[in-house]
Amino acid sequence: MAGLNETHDPARKSWVESANAPDTDFPIQNLPFGVFSVDGGARCIGVAIGDMIVDLTALEEAGKLTPGGSIKVFGDGVLNPFMALPQAVWSETREAISKLLDAEGGDQDLSLVAQADAELHLPIFVRSFTDFYASKEHATNVGSMFRDPNNALMPNWLHIPIGYNGRASTVVVSGTPIHRPNGQLKGPQDEVPGFGPCRKLDIELELGAVVGTPNPMGQPVTAAQAYDNIFGYVLMNDWSARDIQTWEYQPLGPFQSKAFATSISPWVVTREALEPFRKPAPERVKQLLPYLQEKTPNNFDIDLVVELAPDGGKPSVICRTNYKYMYYSSALQLVHHASSGCAMETGDLLGSGTISGPTQDSFGSMLELSWNGRDPLEVDGGSRTFLEDGDTVTITGSCQGNYRIGFGDCAGKILPAPEFGG
Amino acid sequence: MAGLNETHDPARKSWVESANAPDTDFPIQNLPFGVFSVDGGARCIGVAIGDMIVDLTALEEAGKLTPGGSIKVFGDGVLNPFMALPQAVWSETREAISKLLDAEGGDQDLSLVAQADAELHLPIFVRSFTDFYASKEHATNVGSMFRDPNNALMPNWLHIPIGYNGRASTVVVSGTPIHRPNGQLKGPQDEVPGFGPCRKLDIELELGAVVGTPNPMGQPVTAAQAYDNIFGYVLMNDWSARDIQTWEYQPLGPFQSKAFATSISPWVVTREALEPFRKPAPERVKQLLPYLQEKTPNNFDIDLVVELAPDGGKPSVICRTNYKYMYYSSALQLVHHASSGCAMETGDLLGSGTISGPTQDSFGSMLELSWNGRDPLEVDGGSRTFLEDGDTVTITGSCQGNYRIGFGDCAGKILPAPEFGG
Repeated sequence: MAGLNETHDPARKSWVESANAPDTDFPIQNLPFGVFSVDGGARCIGVAIGDMIVDLTALEEAGKLTPGGSIKVFGDGVLNPFMALPQAVWSETREAISKLLDAEGGDQDLSLVAQADAELHLPIFVRSFTDFYASKEHATNVGSMFRDPNNALMPNWLHIPIGYNGRASTVVVSGTPIHRPNGQLKGPQDEVPGFGPCRKLDIELELGAVVGTPNPMGQPVTAAQAYDNIFGYVLMNDWSARDIQTWEYQPLGPFQSKAFATSISPWVVTREALEPFRKPAPERVKQLLPYLQEKTPNNFDIDLVVELAPDGGKPSVICRTNYKYMYYSSALQLVHHASSGCAMETGDLLGSGTISGPTQDSFGSMLELSWNGRDPLEVDGGSRTFLEDGDTVTITGSCQGNYRIGFGDCAGKILPAPEFGG
Repeated sequence: MAGLNETHDPARKSWVESANAPDTDFPIQNLPFGVFSVDGGARCIGVAIGDMIVDLTALEEAGKLTPGGSIKVFGDGVLNPFMALPQAVWSETREAISKLLDAEGGDQDLSLVAQADAELHLPIFVRSFTDFYASKEHATNVGSMFRDPNNALMPNWLHIPIGYNGRASTVVVSGTPIHRPNGQLKGPQDEVPGFGPCRKLDIELELGAVVGTPNPMGQPVTAAQAYDNIFGYVLMNDWSARDIQTWEYQPLGPFQSKAFATSISPWVVTREALEPFRKPAPERVKQLLPYLQEKTPNNFDIDLVVELAPDGGKPSVICRTNYKYMYYSSALQLVHHASSGCAMETGDLLGSGTISGPTQDSFGSMLELSWNGRDPLEVDGGSRTFLEDGDTVTITGSCQGNYRIGFGDCAGKILPAPEFGG
C-alpha cells in the first residue's frame, strides 16, 4: 500500500525496552504526539514511546530536531505550530524520531521522561470543533427509537455526511472531571419546562480527526487532498445530555445538551501511523455525488472498547466496536465541511459521530446500549440506563497487526451538577 | 440610569472637528475599538473619532496609555488581550481616551490617522461564533412559511433563547467579497440531490455581541453578570444559503448553509457607549424560568438599515428595523449559553439572530422580505427575491439621542461560486 515506509517496518525495535512489549500502545511504529509537563513546569511537546516520553521541545532547543528551521514549533505548549507545517515535514520528523529511537543506530543518550511522572495536557488548541453523525448503525438506531423503525434514516443521510458545529471551549483532555450539566427539561406530560440537573447523561464513543493543513475560505478541498490534510486522530467521548437535547434541538440542532464537555485522549496518533490499517468504507446504499467519491480506502481498522466503573467499583466493558463501520470517513467529512467554501484551520477537530456496530453490544452510546432505558446494563454492584454521579467512563482503542497502535485512555468521571438556576 | 458618566455627557465636544458633526457615527461619546493598518503595515489597535483614528498601539508604545500595566495589550493586532482585562479597565481606558480627545483639556498633539488612509481588519480573533434565533417576528415568519401559520413558533421558543454553534473561521470584516457557496440541493420534485451553486442566497441582518470576560467550564453566569461580561457589539450579516439549508438541516441544524461567510462591521461599539440607549425586552408571552429573568433593560434602541445595490447600480433600502424588538437580549443569550456549564471565552461572538420588526419592510432577511419569492423587491434596474452575483449588501446602524452612536458599515459583495464538484 502506498504511504508505507521504514517507520512502519514491523521488524524495527527500539532501544527503549518497554516499547518492544507486544501489548504496549506505543511501539516505535506509533510515535503519537502529545503535550506534557513535569512537576507543574512548562508544557512541552512529546512523543510517546513505550512507557516513556521523548521531549521534542528539549530536542528543538538543543538543535537536534528543527522541523520549523529557524522558527521554533515545539515551544508553545500545543501541537498547532507543528501541525501547520507542510505534510512532508510531518513525515520527515516522524522518520527522524524513529531513527533516534531505533535499537540499531539510535541515540541512546536521549533523555526521556517517564509517563508515570508526567501530567498530560490537551494536545492541541482546538480551533473549532465539528461533530458528525456518520455511523449508519447509530443514525438508524436513533431514528428507530425516536421516529420510525421502518424509515429510520432521514432522506438526506445517505447523501450527506451530516454534521453540526460543536463547542471548542469545552474540549478537555482525558482525566478532566465532568460536571453533570443543568438545563431545561420537559417531559411529554409537563406543561412547562423546569430547570435542573440532566437526568439522562450519556456518552458518545467517537474518533476525532485533527486537521493539520488548512484551506482558505472559498477554496474547497477534494477527497484525495482532504485525507492528506488530516494530521492525526484522538479518541473522543462527546458527553451528551439526552433530556436537554430532546427539548432544545428543534429546529437548529443540539446546543447546550452537547456544550458542557467533550473529552479527548492525550496522544494524537498520526495519520501516517494508521496507514497500514486502512479499510474501505462500507458498501454505498445509494451512489454518492462525485465530490464525495473516495478513490482510496479512508477508514481504519481500530478496535474500540468502552468501560464503565461506578464510584469505587470495578470497570465493566459496556461496548466493543470498530471504527471501520463508519459510513463516512473523516476525509469525506472534511470534503463536505469545506464544500461550501468554509475555511478549515489547523487544530480543527472533527468528531466522527457515535461509532456503533451492528449488534447491541457494539453500540457507542448508553442511549442505544440500554435502548433508551428499556435494557439496563449490568455494571459492578448494580445496573445503569444512563450515567450516575461518580461513574467513570474509559474509552480505549487500538489497531492490531504485527504490532499494536494504541491511543491510550480517554477517561472522565462524573461530578454532581453545579448549584445554579435561582 | 446606572452606568452613565462623564464619557456620555452630550455637552462634551472633541478637538477633532469631524467628531462634532451631528451626523457622524463616531462622536466623542462613542469611541469604538477596531484594528487598522496603513500602507500594508502592521495591524494596530485604534479608536474611531469623527473621520479619524486614534492609534492606541502607538499610545501604549509611548507609555501614554497602559491599560495592561507592564503587559502590552495593544500589540497583537486584535482586541482580545484588551478585552480579557477586567471590566473596570475597559471603563478607565474609555475615560482616558475621552479625556485625551476632549475639546477642553485634551491632548491636541496626539497623532491621528485618517480613516480614508487606513485599511480596517477583523477587530477580534473570533474564538467561537454562536448564532441565535431571538426575534419572535423572525421565528414566527419562518414558522409561518415552512410549518403552520397558526402554530408558527416551536413549543420551546418562548422558553429558550434558541441558538446553535456557527463557524468562527469564516467570520470576516466588512468589505470582504463573498463567494456564492456550492452545496447539495434537492427540490421537492427531485429524486436525488445535485451539487452546485446556491440559488437562494440570502442575508441575515444581525447584531453581534462580543464576549470580553470569560467564565470557566462548569461555572454558569447570572443575568446580571452576563450583561457586564459583554465588551461590545458589531453589525453582522450572517449570509445564508436557504436551499442548501432546506436539504441539510434535519436533524442537527444548519451547517454548510451558514458556514461559508459571516460579515461583521470593523468597529466594536462598546457596551458602555450604548448605555444611554438601553430598552426593556418586549413583554413576555410566557413567564421565563428564573435563570432567564432580567432585572434590568438589556436591549438597545438601535436603528438598522439594509441596502442592496446591484453591480454598478444604486443602493436601495430594502429593510428598516430596530434591535429593541428582540425577544431575548444578548445578556440572556449568554446566560443560557453558559447554563450547562459551557465555558465562554474572550472573543466569543454571539449573533442575535435575524432582527425582524413587525411589518414586512422591517424583516431582516430576503426570505421574509420577499416571502420566499412571492413578493419580489424593487431594486435599481430590476427586482430581487434572493441575491444575484455582483450584488452588494450594506448594513448600517445607529442610536440617536443628543448625539449619534453609529456602527459604520457592514458590507459585502457577492462573487460567483468557485468551480468545484467534479
